[in-house]
Formats: sequence, C-alpha cells, structure tokens
Amino acid sequence: MTPGKKLEGLVAAAITPMTPDGQINLSVICQYVDYLVREQNVKNIFVNGTTGEGLSLSIQERKQLAEEWVRQGKDKLDHVIIHVGALSLPESQDLARHAAAIGASGIAVIAPFFFKPTNKDELVAFLQKVASEAPGVPFYYYHIPPLTGVKIRVEELLDGIREQIPTFQGVKFSDTDLLDLAQCINKNGSEQFAFLYGVDEQLLGALAVGVNGAVGSTYNYLGRKTELMLQAFAKPDLALAQKYQFLIGEFLNFVIKLGFGVAQTKAVMTFVSGIPMGPPRLPLVNASEEFIAKAKAKLDSIAWPNSD
Amino acid sequence: MTPGKKLEGLVAAAITPMTPDGQINLSVICQYVDYLVREQNVKNIFVNGTTGEGLSLSIQERKQLAEEWVRQGKDKLDHVIIHVGALSLPESQDLARHAAAIGASGIAVIAPFFFKPTNKDELVAFLQKVASEAPGVPFYYYHIPPLTGVKIRVEELLDGIREQIPTFQGVKFSDTDLLDLAQCINKNGSEQFAFLYGVDEQLLGALAVGVNGAVGSTYNYLGRKTELMLQAFAKPDLALAQKYQFLIGEFLNFVIKLGFGVAQTKAVMTFVSGIPMGPPRLPLVNASEEFIAKAKAKLDSIAWPNSD
Amino acid sequence: MTPGKKLEGLVAAAITPMTPDGQINLSVICQYVDYLVREQNVKNIFVNGTTGEGLSLSIQERKQLAEEWVRQGKDKLDHVIIHVGALSLPESQDLARHAAAIGASGIAVIAPFFFKPTNKDELVAFLQKVASEAPGVPFYYYHIPPLTGVKIRVEELLDGIREQIPTFQGVKFSDTDLLDLAQCINKNGSEQFAFLYGVDEQLLGALAVGVNGAVGSTYNYLGRKTELMLQAFAKPDLALAQKYQFLIGEFLNFVIKLGFGVAQTKAVMTFVSGIPMGPPRLPLVNASEEFIAKAKAKLDSIAWPNSD
Amino acid sequence: MTPGKKLEGLVAAAITPMTPDGQINLSVICQYVDYLVREQNVKNIFVNGTTGEGLSLSIQERKQLAEEWVRQGKDKLDHVIIHVGALSLPESQDLARHAAAIGASGIAVIAPFFFKPTNKDELVAFLQKVASEAPGVPFYYYHIPPLTGVKIRVEELLDGIREQIPTFQGVKFSDTDLLDLAQCINKNGSEQFAFLYGVDEQLLGALAVGVNGAVGSTYNYLGRKTELMLQAFAKPDLALAQKYQFLIGEFLNFVIKLGFGVAQTKAVMTFVSGIPMGPPRLPLVNASEEFIAKAKAKLDSIAWPNSD
Repeated sequence: MTPGKKLEGLVAAAITPMTPDGQINLSVICQYVDYLVREQNVKNIFVNGTTGEGLSLSIQERKQLAEEWVRQGKDKLDHVIIHVGALSLPESQDLARHAAAIGASGIAVIAPFFFKPTNKDELVAFLQKVASEAPGVPFYYYHIPPLTGVKIRVEELLDGIREQIPTFQGVKFSDTDLLDLAQCINKNGSEQFAFLYGVDEQLLGALAVGVNGAVGSTYNYLGRKTELMLQAFAKPDLALAQKYQFLIGEFLNFVIKLGFGVAQTKAVMTFVSGIPMGPPRLPLVNASEEFIAKAKAKLDSIAWPNSD
Repeated sequence: MTPGKKLEGLVAAAITPMTPDGQINLSVICQYVDYLVREQNVKNIFVNGTTGEGLSLSIQERKQLAEEWVRQGKDKLDHVIIHVGALSLPESQDLARHAAAIGASGIAVIAPFFFKPTNKDELVAFLQKVASEAPGVPFYYYHIPPLTGVKIRVEELLDGIREQIPTFQGVKFSDTDLLDLAQCINKNGSEQFAFLYGVDEQLLGALAVGVNGAVGSTYNYLGRKTELMLQAFAKPDLALAQKYQFLIGEFLNFVIKLGFGVAQTKAVMTFVSGIPMGPPRLPLVNASEEFIAKAKAKLDSIAWPNSD
Repeated sequence: MTPGKKLEGLVAAAITPMTPDGQINLSVICQYVDYLVREQNVKNIFVNGTTGEGLSLSIQERKQLAEEWVRQGKDKLDHVIIHVGALSLPESQDLARHAAAIGASGIAVIAPFFFKPTNKDELVAFLQKVASEAPGVPFYYYHIPPLTGVKIRVEELLDGIREQIPTFQGVKFSDTDLLDLAQCINKNGSEQFAFLYGVDEQLLGALAVGVNGAVGSTYNYLGRKTELMLQAFAKPDLALAQKYQFLIGEFLNFVIKLGFGVAQTKAVMTFVSGIPMGPPRLPLVNASEEFIAKAKAKLDSIAWPNSD
Repeated sequence: MTPGKKLEGLVAAAITPMTPDGQINLSVICQYVDYLVREQNVKNIFVNGTTGEGLSLSIQERKQLAEEWVRQGKDKLDHVIIHVGALSLPESQDLARHAAAIGASGIAVIAPFFFKPTNKDELVAFLQKVASEAPGVPFYYYHIPPLTGVKIRVEELLDGIREQIPTFQGVKFSDTDLLDLAQCINKNGSEQFAFLYGVDEQLLGALAVGVNGAVGSTYNYLGRKTELMLQAFAKPDLALAQKYQFLIGEFLNFVIKLGFGVAQTKAVMTFVSGIPMGPPRLPLVNASEEFIAKAKAKLDSIAWPNSD
C-alpha cells in the first residue's frame, strides 16, 4: 500500500471468495490481488462492501478477510479500503478499531438502514462514532440510497464535516443524482476529498461532472476496459470514451435484463478470471447455468475498439 | 415459562433498557417482568425485535439480554420468544443455538433485507438454515414488509412449510394486508399455527379475520386496555371493542403525527411504568421533551370506558 | 333513486361496457341495472370510477354514461353516484354541473394525482372548487392512495370540512390504513357521514372498525355473497362472516396471482352475468383466454355455506 | 417554423401564462416568443407539457394554446412541439389531429399513468393509436418515470419502433438512468432520432453520453447560460462546461431545498423575464413571497464566467 497517495482512479469492489460449502476462502486472495494488478490494472480494493457480501458475513469473518487483503495487498496495491459499516454501532466501532490495528488504507461506512437516520445530524453522529475509533485512518462515507433508503443529500452532509470527523476523506457515491454529486465536487474541491462514483454503468456521466474515480464490481473484470475509457475522457476523446461506455453498458444492459446481482457477479468473475469465487451466501443463491452461458457469450461477442 | 402452552393473546415487544451512556441495562429486567405481569396483565415477551433495537445491538449484547429475560421470566411469564434474525446467516444461527441452549420458549426470524430473497424458496431456505440450529424450539417467521421490503406472501410461504421447517409454529404478521392474513389463518387453521398481529393501531381489523393474538410495543403500556378490547371482541360486544380501538388509536394517531418510533416508545414506557428505559442507540436519538410532555398529556386525557 | 336515503350497504363500482371496437355500449346498461338488483341484490352504483375506466373516457363519453345510468336507475336503484374527478379542474367542474343537471344522487372526486396536493388545504381547495359547482348534490371524497400517491390522512381532511364543503357527505376509503379509517368514523360519527370501504378483499376488517358499507368492483358479481357476509357480521355471527370473507378472498387471492385488474374484472363480469362487457380501453388490454378459464373454474369450485 | 430541420439543442418547456383569475392568457404568447428568441437564444418550444400544466387544462384550452404558439412561432421559432398526451386515448387522438391541422412541428405523448402499461407492447399500442392520427407529424415519446411510474426501458421501446410508428422521431428523456439513455443513442444513432434530455440539473452528464439537446423548464430563463455550457462542451472545454453546470446547479439546488415545482417556475420566469406568467392552477398553489425573494437574491448572486 502507498501511504499518503490519494485515492483515485479505479477501485475494485472485492468479491468474497467462498468454498463450495459456503465458508470464506482466504486461500485465493493472493491470486486475486495478482489478477487485479496484472490483468485489470487495478491497484485499489474496497473490502467487505455490498459486492463482498460484507453484511452477510460474521464479524469474525469480516476481520479475517480484512487481514488477508491487507497482508496480500501490502506490496502490490495502493489502497486497501475496509468497509466497516454495520447496523450495530458497537460492531461497526469494533471493525473500525480492527481495521486501524491491521493498517488498512482507509475505512468506509454505509448509512444504517434498518432504523434510518432522518437528517444530516443523526447520520453524522453515527458516522462520527465509528470514525473516531480509528483516528489515524482516512474515512469514507458510502452513499447508496437505492439500497439503504437514506436519501440525505451528500452536499449537505459535507458541510462542516471535517470539524466533526477530522479523518473524513471522501465519498463512494452510488446514486444517479448528479446534481448532488456536482455540488459536492465543486463546493469541496476534488483536491480536498475523493469522490468515487459507484454506478458503473453510467460512470461517464459522473466523469463529466468531475469525479476522481470509481468504486465498483465491474472493475474486477472490466477494469482494463474502463481504464481505457478514463484515458479517452482525459485526453479528451469523448467519442472514444462514449464508445467504451456504450460497450460496457451493452454487456451490463444485457445481464441486468437476465437478473444481475452479487451472485451473478461472482459467476462472471469466475469465468473471466479463472479464480473460483464460489457460491454466494443465503439469501443469495447461485447464478443459473443458463445465465453463465449467456453472459459469457455476450461478453465474448463484444468488439472493443482497436486501440485496445 | 409454560412449555406446551400455545402462544396467543398479547405479547409485549420488549424494549431494551439502556443506561444513560448507552449500555444495555440488565438490572431492570426483573422489575420490567413484574410490571408487565402485574400492571399490564401481559405474560408473553418478544425479545430483541424491532422495538428492542435487536439489530442495533452486538451479538454478545443480544445473548445477554436473551439470557436475562429467560432467567427473570422463568416462573412469571408464559412465553419468552427470542428474535434471532440477522443479516448474517452464521450470526443468526449462532443466536438460534444460544436461544435453544438457554431454554427460550421460541425463536423468531425476520426476512433478510439488505440482500432480499426474491421468492418463497429463497426465503424458506434462509429461515430453514436458522431453524434447524434449534431443532427443539418453536419457530416463528417475523413478517414486516414495510420495514424489510420483502413482500413474499405469507400464505404462499406456509404452503408445505412443516416439511422444511418441522418446528414452524407461527407468524408475527406486521402488515396491513388482511387478505393474505385471512388466507393464512383459514388454510392452515388457527389451531395449528399462531398468527399474531403486529400493527397495534389496527388490531381490531385483524381480530375480525381471526388472529390468535398480537405482538407489539404498545402492549408494554396499553396491555391492560388492549386486553379489555380482546375480551369485548370475544363476547362479542363489538361496540365496546370499537370504543377501545378508537381510544387506543386516538393516542397513537396523535403521537404518530408528532413523529413516533422506538425512541419515543422508550420515553412513553418510562413515564407510564416508572422504569427507566434510557436513551435509544444511534442512529435513533432521544425523544424530545416536547414530545414527552404532549404524549403524556394526551394519554392522561383519554376517558376509558367505565368497565375499566 | 331514493332521495334522502343514506348511502350505505353495498355499492357496485360500475364497469363500462364497450363494443368490440372500443366504443362505449350504452345499450346494455338497462340489463346491467336489472342484473344488479335482481341477481346481486345491489341497489347503488358508482359510475365512471376506477373500475369504470372513467379517466380513460372522454368528457363526452363520461356524460353519456352518467345520463344513461341515471335514466335506467331512476326507479330501480337507490343511489347513482357519479365520479366527476379529473386532472383538469375545469373539466371536473363541468362534469359536476352536468351530474347536478341530470339529477345524480351524489358526486365523487378523486384527488388529483399528476400534480399532487401536498397538504390538506391544497386538496380541500381543489375539492371545494368542484363541489361548489353542484351545490345541491351530496359530495364524496374518493380516497385511494395506492393509485394516486396522495396520502393526506382523511381524518385530517374531515376536520372542519362542512364549513368549506357544505355538501360533504362521505368518503370512499380505498386504503388499508384502518387507524385513519377508525378515527374518521369515531370523530365524525357514522350517522353524519357515509364511510364506504373500497378494498373488497378485506372488507371484514373495515366492518370491525365501523364502516357503513362498501364500494367495489366485486359487488358486481359477488354482491349477494358479500351481502350475506354483512348480515352475518350484523347478527353478529363472526365465524360465518369470516367464512364468507375467506371464500371471497380465496377467489381474489387466486386471480390476483394471475394478474387481476379492470380488464380481468370485465371478463369475470361477462362470464358471471352473461352481459357482454366488451374489451377494456388502452392502455389496458384484454384478459387472456387462459385467465378467463382459470378464473371461471376457481369461482365455480367454491363451496359457499349452506345458508346461501 | 423550419420544416425538415432536425430538433436539437435547447427546447424550452412552455409555461402556460394565466390571468390572475386563473384563465389562460393568450395575449402574452407573442411577447414570450420574442423573449425566448432574443433574450435566451432558444428557438424551440414544447407546449402543454408538465411545465405547461397541460394535464390541468381542458382539451379546449390545450387547443387554444397550441394554436397561439404555432401562430406566434411561425416565423420566429424552429420547432413548436405540442404535447398531446392524455389519460384518455380518444382525447389524445383528438389533440393529435388538431396539432396536425394547425401545422405543429411535432407531437409528443407521455405514457398513460393512471392505468399503466405493464410492458413495451402495451405502451407502443397506446402511442401508435395517437401517432397514427397525425400521420404527417413527427412523433416524440415523453419518458418521465419519476412522474408516471412507467419504467419501461426506452432502449426496448425503440426496438423496431419505426415499423409500428413510422413518424417516430425521438424521445424527451426525463430520467437519470444514463445506461438506458446511452444504449438508446448508440443503438439507434443520434442521426436517426432526437434524444433530448429532460433533467435540467444534470444535463452535462447526458451530454457526455451523447444527447442531441434538452427540453426543460429552466431554458425559459437560463437558456443563454445553458447554451454557453453546450458550446463549452462542444469545443470541448470540459472545465468551463462543468463551471456552468455547477452554477446552474447551485441555483437549482438552492430552490429545490425551498420546494421547487411548476408554481415556483412560473414565479421565477415572471421576475426574470418581466412577462406576467400569473398563478398556477389548482392543485398547485402560488409560490410564496418568501420563495420569490430568496430565489431572486440567489440568482442575482451567481457570478457567471467572464466569457458570458
């Protein structure tokens, strides 16, 4: 890991490998890290998030996974961000202390979503209680209203945030409200905070309003293609960036119609990378064989630009 | 507790007492049990559910609370039901084993709601994995779609349920869909399973379609009044039952407009029972002084029927 | 029609008969009236509502239908209520004047739902502008939040309503919130206003909190069975009332799973009554032959109590 | 109007001017056209849409407005698009025939939203019945799922659309799903159809995926600023485009927090243009004086780039 380096560019949302009988499979993390770095050109990872089934794991399992990612990523990855959010504040605090102890690059927290904070103050109070348990670790807020139902505008949340959470460092922004996102970026400065977009299928729209990068599950297996989109956008060669976004979208649009979630992501990553990601944990169930066949055929059929 | 006795009538959804600094306060559970039995005529308790902030507690805290309720309720209560639902299956299984070990009267499980089961089979698979860890303990499904977003019809869920979950014993039904509820009751027989309604403010409607009883937070402090409604309904004296439902509703309607949730329930129980329930845990925040004053004045103003 | 008689008991939500090419078919209204009175024992009708595809008709068609129902119902029905709600206030006012001119027993108005009133005052202002165009005609508010998204509590709406709408006479309450309903009934008195429930599949729950009757599509073809439920409830013979509610629910539960809406209601009414209701209008499309066969078989299979 | 010219760039969503007593005020349309052309550099108008309170008007009023816009825009505007959508198919058809008769540049139709089409075929069937009444007039689908609840993907809708609707010409896309939008544009070619974005506050994101232009209410008073954003984007000068989007968003973000809808838009347009737009029609109510004062101060406070 690279202390002091700003979190930007692509961050893969780590899939949690499991054995056929549903236990976490730490043995493939080393191979997983190498694959991301060598094959996908991705050097940042977000562990125990939505894609990682973090909330379906026990606290002990989350700690073991975090440790293994930090250990394996030590000399190979730039950032290992550990998601420590939980419905239970003391458990989230426990995870935050643990992440600090093992030397994580950062921690992230989702808004609690069974009982939901109803305004900015309640949300910040919860986040602050977690962040303060890891006073030396950069803190990221994980904003994902489609899953949490917590729609507090991030732009409001950020107002004065450093006074309450001195370690505040950025946002994983998983929503389609680009008005809120653009206000966040412009008011706070993309120099100050990291704004990482979390809706992979429309990253180009977020780049247009100025995000620093992205966190998502597709960067596990489409990281290199997405990196080329980022480069095209930076030139700027908008036509080429659009071409990449369209082709990535063509795959995602196709699998979304078939039913696409974390279970299916595990299956796709398995056939693309060759690393066995195993089954998901209940209440998720295995992707069907039919899904896998169709998804593979679709992905193979895409004609990427020559520049690739 | 009374083994073999069917769960019916009123079940109080246990509030979790906390100390001013937010730790669980086991020391008042004994007093709480006595209050329920003596003052509210309620002899069944549902521990670590929504009202009990079960999902905001750590696994360790949930176990401690369960133990204390079983210990204190042993010779005083008929049923101590422990809610063991969790987003994480292994944690839910751990809690189920613990509840069995301490001799709980029953266990209940909410549908997982971050990743949501999309059909009956996925939901039953999850519930079965928990129930089977406590093979001698009656199992209840906790159906609360307004909070979970899991809208799988209970009537479908019950079809053949005993083959997969031999310990299945009933449902805490917290929804306003009385069509589903009536089909459940009639198809399965209220002799076979317990159907306990969970929307306190409209219990009378559920009684009309045949429920066995109710689980709810208001029975902590309005148990005796509600018991009189049940008696009026059983006679049947519908006019009197309606009078009780209206008066209970008048209070609830009033506080709902002020903003009524678990934090406010803790405050109401404190001023009614005199037992200090303490603050809620974040992301919930204390009820305001204004709320408490208004709620108390409203409750005091209600003129209950003479029969009381 | 019977001026001065209070609206209570069952009200059929009129289906709009159409010719095979989609024009309204006024020629069968006479037969329809006779069928309701003789075969279903229903003597009240609600014209141009949801079931009647009122908002899918032109203003001219709505007027023609209203006229025909008033004409045919004159000596046979007790109440002919015309729904005059529309998104456009001047059109709604036009329809209200027309209903008054033709001698309707009452008018009803749904909350506008494209632009939605955000509080009681805005909603009452709209309703008042319509009601005042028919100053001699009883006015009913049609509350159906699942379709309109307008969730303003009726209990609040009724507070002082007669001062603004002197003709206010009651509510068609199509929601499952029995707390709101019970408060309406108890605060205003069922003597003063008519509270007619609109969720057919759970009417028994609403009877328990004191409604005067019901408006719904199923009373077109299950009016007589529902009337027996009302009688059983009035005795009170709750077990028999539950039996009827369960059996009615068994049919509705079955067809709801197949996909049940206004198009399917037209098909069911056609095969039960023998009166050709014709196709629905776009965006609705015909019920499938498969639906019709299954629905008919299900309805035929129900064993009603002997008392029938 | 300019027959044959492709619809692109900015289209103002016409506000419907009303007299103080709530009648439509045709007398200011001439002045309104001149203002748009001269002050805002906007030469396309979308009449009787959401902003124009089209569904709150009577059919007769909609026709009068359409006629006046066509008459006044004849030699000054490039495109006068008439929204002819309605809940009632025959009324929508009537409006389509009228628009054709008066020489409108195009017609647009919103998805019916009381009864909602449940799949592509049902929606296309409805649209086709309207479009075929104006066989010589370009047809646009008005996609606005946040208001209609009709979430049928446009990308699916477009598949084979020209076979059923030969006049199909494009989409007003008022949603934040840029995946769907990007697939539409890439599969159909922006040469073939017009894709006009309808979420003003995040237009820049839609430009990034390739839209041809935009339809919205803010172009009435921020048309010139938005035009500068389009120019910056076209260069491309992304930093400048972002600056414009941020400043436009700063205003919108501010007024959205105050409560911003069509009534407020009328007030803003009145103080910016000096043309009296009058009150909205019920169920909308006048913007408050406080809103107007704050909105005006905010708009005046914005420091636009020097290039302006």
